[in-house]
Amino acid sequence: MKWIYPDFEFRPKRPLFLCVISNTDTGKIPGLSAAGTTPELTDYTPGADAELVETNKIITMPELPEAPGGSPTPAIVTKAALNLTKIPSLFVASGLRKKPAVPYVELGGVGGNDIRKQTGVPDAKMLYENATLLGKKLATLSDCIFIGESIAGGTTTALAVLKALGYDVNVSSSFATNPTGLKTQVVMDAFSRAGIKEGSLKNDPLRAVTEVGDPMMPAALGLMRGLAGTKVVLAGGTQMAAVLALGAALGIEGDISIATTKYIMEDKTANFKEIVESLGRPYYYSDPGLENSKIPPVQIYAQGYVKEGVGMGGAALLAAINGVPREKLVEETDHVLMTVELPKK
Amino acid sequence: MKWIYPDFEFRPKRPLFLCVISNTDTGKIPGLSAAGTTPELTDYTPGADAELVETNKIITMPELPEAPGGSPTPAIVTKAALNLTKIPSLFVASGLRKKPAVPYVELGGVGGNDIRKQTGVPDAKMLYENATLLGKKLATLSDCIFIGESIAGGTTTALAVLKALGYDVNVSSSFATNPTGLKTQVVMDAFSRAGIKEGSLKNDPLRAVTEVGDPMMPAALGLMRGLAGTKVVLAGGTQMAAVLALGAALGIEGDISIATTKYIMEDKTANFKEIVESLGRPYYYSDPGLENSKIPPVQIYAQGYVKEGVGMGGAALLAAINGVPREKLVEETDHVLMTVELPKK
Repeated sequence: MKWIYPDFEFRPKRPLFLCVISNTDTGKIPGLSAAGTTPELTDYTPGADAELVETNKIITMPELPEAPGGSPTPAIVTKAALNLTKIPSLFVASGLRKKPAVPYVELGGVGGNDIRKQTGVPDAKMLYENATLLGKKLATLSDCIFIGESIAGGTTTALAVLKALGYDVNVSSSFATNPTGLKTQVVMDAFSRAGIKEGSLKNDPLRAVTEVGDPMMPAALGLMRGLAGTKVVLAGGTQMAAVLALGAALGIEGDISIATTKYIMEDKTANFKEIVESLGRPYYYSDPGLENSKIPPVQIYAQGYVKEGVGMGGAALLAAINGVPREKLVEETDHVLMTVELPKK
Repeated sequence: MKWIYPDFEFRPKRPLFLCVISNTDTGKIPGLSAAGTTPELTDYTPGADAELVETNKIITMPELPEAPGGSPTPAIVTKAALNLTKIPSLFVASGLRKKPAVPYVELGGVGGNDIRKQTGVPDAKMLYENATLLGKKLATLSDCIFIGESIAGGTTTALAVLKALGYDVNVSSSFATNPTGLKTQVVMDAFSRAGIKEGSLKNDPLRAVTEVGDPMMPAALGLMRGLAGTKVVLAGGTQMAAVLALGAALGIEGDISIATTKYIMEDKTANFKEIVESLGRPYYYSDPGLENSKIPPVQIYAQGYVKEGVGMGGAALLAAINGVPREKLVEETDHVLMTVELPKK
């Protein structure tokens, strides 16, 4: 059964699945992100996602990362896809406060600030350069690199940079009901603090990241830049669409596309397709069929909860092109969730 | 001109140069290590080596790492070889206290203890498992992986684990005159603290690492284990010979050899050749010809100062098999040293 649209024709010989993990205090604004049951736990979510994907254990967080609606982290789908394909993953920390207890690449930097109150990513330039260096190395080893993300609050900073670049768009949410009013208010407050206007940074994308972005962005951008010559697939929804827009503004060239989920494509409150099409980059989406899960909190992904994250859509695409049947991915996702080891209380 | 002995016939397509960076308080025992001008600075030496190789800048240490005799860190030779071959490097932190300001892989763990006073590597098992996980990933990407090290004090812990495994041998030193008496005393004190005897841990190599080793060892061992199926070349002198011995005791199999410098081969106070030959593993050594340097502190490498470190011998081998003339490596080494950027005072 076909479950990737349109066809992804390239068959990588040595694929690598990267996932940038970062924190931003913007994600702690109450009501903004569903990644982490409480604002305090959001700092631990990306590290816990890394632990789940690398070892199927949660080590540094007291519980499985989940949304307030009770859906588990999309890392379970990513883990399932990587289990079934044996494709290696590598987590890349960029401005990450709580480090995972599994191997990861450290790019440095401090956690991102609440963009309403302070410069979002003071060390954006350094993170961009360090990620470029890493990208150059990986370009010699892999012929196709997927780049996902895990950062709570990232859709709001995505909205902020898109507006700073002049895009009149909206972004998705990990909530089923997108808190667009709150997001827009945060962006307006941040613009007012930074003294910028919609479109005023279209020629200074790194300043947009620094002022109103998050630390995932300079890492993904630097990787894209360093990986020139290798096929790059951004794995994510509107956050990665924002990275694509920033990359275009920076003049980053190469074989760059984006892969996400059907749930993002169906999100009427967000403009994923418009942004990507305006940039002239190919996009792909997978329909992982999670309504067929035996576990209700996983089934409701298909109703628009969670939607994306930890490169879930790209990982599902990798499973599909490696011949994994869709029902097998759902089955393995359920298995991952049923067997994940949690810290003893 | 031939400057690698014997011939290294494999021509890797996607080589990767790893370097494990770690700390041990054993290296702070006065008179034991020449890596870092003062015992206090030894914690910064591995990170500074990483910074030098990745960016030709020293960022987190106040000065270029050097030996008391005034010789600069062997990282300059490694950097020169990687510059000339464009082979990617990746530094891997394992029990590292002072982190570099460049991208690196973090395996976790705390700095190693003074083996006379405490268990050397309390988290050896975790580091071994994490490194195994990393090795498995890299095995899918590279067809030949070199593993070097930078850890001040590592030859003493190497001596300790070799004796715990039952090898009646000696190890090299970064000093021109090997402080063998002091090293043996440290090992005896450590054995007495841990309640072990020469050879008493020959069937429990991970306990040897835990009790009297350093955090570089479980990382190098785990990488070797995870990399099964990929060609592995340990790049170092007697420290890597100790890793080879530990790997044999652990039953780690694969295409594993060791590459070092002529300066290690000529060290009459150490038993590099005996250890490696007894294990039946191929060894190679390069003669980088540093007596032809225009810079006296580099020339004296050829008189037995420094000898090895940061995978210098293996990096020189990579240069040679990639057709770099020996005089070009010396010239580039001088160039690296003359142009390295130091922190502003």
